[in-house]
Amino acid sequence: MTMKRHFDADLDDLRGRLLRMGSLCEEMIQYAVKVVVEREESHLAAVEEWERQVNRLHIEIDDLCLRLIALHQPAAGDLRLIAAALKINSDLERVGDQAVNVAVTGVFLLKEPRIKLGDIPRMVEVAAGMLKDALDSFARGDVALAREVIRRDDEEDRLKSQTFNELVHLMQSDASAIQRGMDVILIARNLERIADHATNIAEDVVFMVLGKDIRHGAERE
Amino acid sequence: MTMKRHFDADLDDLRGRLLRMGSLCEEMIQYAVKVVVEREESHLAAVEEWERQVNRLHIEIDDLCLRLIALHQPAAGDLRLIAAALKINSDLERVGDQAVNVAVTGVFLLKEPRIKLGDIPRMVEVAAGMLKDALDSFARGDVALAREVIRRDDEEDRLKSQTFNELVHLMQSDASAIQRGMDVILIARNLERIADHATNIAEDVVFMVLGKDIRHGAERE
Repeated sequence: MTMKRHFDADLDDLRGRLLRMGSLCEEMIQYAVKVVVEREESHLAAVEEWERQVNRLHIEIDDLCLRLIALHQPAAGDLRLIAAALKINSDLERVGDQAVNVAVTGVFLLKEPRIKLGDIPRMVEVAAGMLKDALDSFARGDVALAREVIRRDDEEDRLKSQTFNELVHLMQSDASAIQRGMDVILIARNLERIADHATNIAEDVVFMVLGKDIRHGAERE
Repeated sequence: MTMKRHFDADLDDLRGRLLRMGSLCEEMIQYAVKVVVEREESHLAAVEEWERQVNRLHIEIDDLCLRLIALHQPAAGDLRLIAAALKINSDLERVGDQAVNVAVTGVFLLKEPRIKLGDIPRMVEVAAGMLKDALDSFARGDVALAREVIRRDDEEDRLKSQTFNELVHLMQSDASAIQRGMDVILIARNLERIADHATNIAEDVVFMVLGKDIRHGAERE
C-alpha cells in the first residue's frame, strides 16, 4: 500500500472506532434508563461493562489520533477530522460517565416507592436521538443534520426545566418525596448534559466539514 | 528567526494564552462565589464579561493548535503539548460555564432568605486550589504537583456528598427551604465539576510530560 492509502485506511479505522464507541454510549443510555423506568437493577452491570469498553476506546482513540498526526503530518480537512475525533472522543467518554450516573441513581430510586418521573422519558428520547444524529452527521459529514441536532438542544433544556419545576412542587407538598425527587432531578441533569455533549459533537462536525467554528454563537453574531 | 525558533515562540504563545484563559477562569470562580456568599449581585456582570473573553480564547487556542500542527508537523513531546493544550482548552471553557452557572444560581438565591451553605465555602477553596495547581503543573511540567491535584479530587467529592446530605435534611424539615436548598445543591455540583475539570487538566499534564496515559485508573490496574 502507498502511504496515502495507509493513511486513508487509518482514517477509516479512526472513524470506525469512534462510531463503535458512540454505539456503546447509545446502548448505555438506553439500559441506564431501563434501570429507572422499568426498575430493573440488573442492567447496571451491563452499563458498567460497556463503560469499561468505552474507557478503553477513549485511550486507544487518543493514541491513534496522535500517531496519525505524527506519522502522516495531515493538513486541512484530514487534520480537522483528527482534531474533531480528539474532541468527539472526550465528549463520548463523558456521555458514558453520565449514563453510568443515571444507572447508579436509578438503583437508589429502586429502594424507594415509585415517584413521578416528569418529562424524563421524553428527555431520554431527545438526548438519545440527538446523540444518534450527531454521530450520523459525523459518519456522513452531513452539516445540515449537525445543525439540526444543535437546534434540538433547546427542547432538552425546556424539558429539564419543566421536570425541575414539577419535582420541586412535588417535594414541597410531600417531604417524604424529597430524597427521591432530588434523584430524579439529578437524572434530568445527566440527560441534559448528554444532549450538551451531542451538541458539542455536532458543532465539531460543522467545523470538520466547513472549517468554520460556530461555537459560542459565532454564527449569530 | 529559524523555523525552530519560530515554533518555540509559537509554543510559548500557546502556553501563555492557555494560562491567561486559566487565570480568567480562576477570577470567574472567585467572583461567582462572591455572588453566593457575599450576596452581591453586581459580580454577575463581571463573570459574564470574563466568560466572553474565555470563549474568544477557546476559539483562538483551538485554531492556533491546528495551525501549529499543520505548519510545524510536531512530533513526540511537542505534539503531546499541543494535544494537551487542545484538551485543557475544552476543560477551561467548561470551567467558565460552571462558574457562570454558580453566579446565575447565586442571583436566584439572593431573592430568597439566607440559607445554610453547607461545605460550599470549603468546596470553593478546594476546587479553586486544584485548578490553580493544575495550571501551575502545566506551566512548569510538574508531574508531582499534577498527581497531587488528582488525589485532592476525593476530598471535593466527600464535601459534595456532605453538603447534599445536609441540605436534603434541611429541606425535609422545612418545606419552605426546598427551592433554595435545591439551588445550593446545584452549586455544589458545579463546584464538584470544576474540580473534575482540574483533575482532567492534571491528567493531561502527566500525559504531556511522561507520554503515559493515566486516565481510567490505568496506573492502578
